[in-house]
Amino acid sequence: MNKVINLCVVGFGNAGQAFAKMLIQEHGNLSILTGYDVRITAIATNSKGCLLNKDGLNLNKVIESVEKYGDFQALSSDKISTIDLIKSSGAHVMIELSALSIDDGQPAISYIETAFSLDMHVITANKGPIAWCYRKLQNIANRKELKFLYETTVMDGTPIFNLVKYSLPGTKVLSFKGILNSTTNFIIEEMELGNTYEAAIKEAQRRGFAEADPSLDVDGWDAAAKTAALANVLMNGSLTPMTVDREGIKNLTPHDVKEALNAGKKIKLLCEGYIENGDVIGKVRPVLLDEKDIFSRVDATSSILSVTTNLMGEVIVVEKNPEIQQTAYGVYSDLITLLKL
Amino acid sequence: MNKVINLCVVGFGNAGQAFAKMLIQEHGNLSILTGYDVRITAIATNSKGCLLNKDGLNLNKVIESVEKYGDFQALSSDKISTIDLIKSSGAHVMIELSALSIDDGQPAISYIETAFSLDMHVITANKGPIAWCYRKLQNIANRKELKFLYETTVMDGTPIFNLVKYSLPGTKVLSFKGILNSTTNFIIEEMELGNTYEAAIKEAQRRGFAEADPSLDVDGWDAAAKTAALANVLMNGSLTPMTVDREGIKNLTPHDVKEALNAGKKIKLLCEGYIENGDVIGKVRPVLLDEKDIFSRVDATSSILSVTTNLMGEVIVVEKNPEIQQTAYGVYSDLITLLKL
Repeated sequence: MNKVINLCVVGFGNAGQAFAKMLIQEHGNLSILTGYDVRITAIATNSKGCLLNKDGLNLNKVIESVEKYGDFQALSSDKISTIDLIKSSGAHVMIELSALSIDDGQPAISYIETAFSLDMHVITANKGPIAWCYRKLQNIANRKELKFLYETTVMDGTPIFNLVKYSLPGTKVLSFKGILNSTTNFIIEEMELGNTYEAAIKEAQRRGFAEADPSLDVDGWDAAAKTAALANVLMNGSLTPMTVDREGIKNLTPHDVKEALNAGKKIKLLCEGYIENGDVIGKVRPVLLDEKDIFSRVDATSSILSVTTNLMGEVIVVEKNPEIQQTAYGVYSDLITLLKL
Repeated sequence: MNKVINLCVVGFGNAGQAFAKMLIQEHGNLSILTGYDVRITAIATNSKGCLLNKDGLNLNKVIESVEKYGDFQALSSDKISTIDLIKSSGAHVMIELSALSIDDGQPAISYIETAFSLDMHVITANKGPIAWCYRKLQNIANRKELKFLYETTVMDGTPIFNLVKYSLPGTKVLSFKGILNSTTNFIIEEMELGNTYEAAIKEAQRRGFAEADPSLDVDGWDAAAKTAALANVLMNGSLTPMTVDREGIKNLTPHDVKEALNAGKKIKLLCEGYIENGDVIGKVRPVLLDEKDIFSRVDATSSILSVTTNLMGEVIVVEKNPEIQQTAYGVYSDLITLLKL
């Protein structure tokens, strides 16, 4: 008889729904792999309602309701705040999938603090808390011997944090560089094809990966948040998105992009972390890359990260054109890591 | 007071010496990280002599002797067979770094079997045993609850096997493809620059990464051994280098390479593993790659591996221009994994 693990899921947008579907599909495998019977007992959302059933929610019915009505109206939904639902969930693990607030990482940070105060382990896919508040949250987790995992916050389920932690043991990360924002990468590519900046943004919005307000991407805030998260976790930095030296792509013109192309080069928005005078520095800015450089071949929605370590030199990881399933897998892989290691 | 772990090292060429240097340098860190005081108590070689000291060899003196004389003559060396040294070493872990025999994986396989029979954990950097005999060796290790690690056998210390095992948990590998042989990659590049096949081989030999007899590389045997190792471990295959569908680069001419280049393409020796009619298939052959393909940008001594999984799609890892230190780190990282997990 397997032990039971109850999850409280905060946020149930595309990522949450994809994660729930993966849990349904992989329930048997997960049980064999970890020895746990994993159930979702609580789901908190702002717009769809809240669900709580300590015997485990029927995930098929939850998804059916969301797909049919856009919310939980087909189920007995509670009117309760997210914090109160976390408190009354009695779950072992909180899965934090709420929307990113780039300004301060809230309310996700307070959700995570609440979960820790209730002795719940936490998995988050939200880069806000890692970019704004990593050290403090990790310290709480360490003190309470709770697990805190966040693989999905950079490059979805592609192993970055877990790669360094579990597969590059004993190394010290000296620097990193990456192309980590799809929208800007796509816009620059569209300009290479002769389209205007405005048309490129419209096309990115139409395809669903740029927000209605694209400034989070084009001003480099998303890239800065990822840079801060990587610097804080991998290099023990104390950055926030605000302290990353940030330049977006707003000043780039189709002329710049074409001129680069004619010179055999490509412009990419590069995220970097390195040490200068003993301090961990984060930088985001458009750079010219030679077309021989593997970084210049990272297309539209793909990402690349190079990590340079003291003992192992440079290791590069690439994620190719991820879909929402890759986000769901990041959370799912953290769940396995949490239950197994 | 830390517990002591004794290592028996088989083979003490460049990789063994680099590993010993890393152990000297990282001894304190390793102790903090794992709680173990790690010592080398035995070293077996064919040409340098054998060393045994159950209180731990003085590694600085060992390296000094090898660097000065090319062997262990400055130390009290034993005339004893490798098998007998493994048996009398009383070590907890065998580090197997003997030379590759592509024909049968011996004598490395018998060394590993001997170590397991003595209840020693095993780390190997030798792809022969994994390509020829993985299933049998892993089954012995499982039955005896011993650890068997081999990260270094493909792409040196770049996490491949440990990446999939520890950082892509719960996934099933559906296929892989990689550029994994430096010598052939270099030779093709030299032909792109207008040099002949023969001149390219000479230059690779001069730089030290092609053997005096280059057939192991140019006939695709090294690539086939890596393909078999990956297929056996990642996809539960039952391949040997002999059963990999193998074509080397001997029939390539500078004309072929130039013609490809003029068409905006590159020729690379590709290793592939996939499932066909329920069987795991391995294939090695030169292919035409579009210059937009990230695989076409893997230069000379760098390597690339793409792994496609059921839950996470495609994850790509690149190793940039490794040196012998990257081989040493592969062994060192396996040692940490063995002691920690």
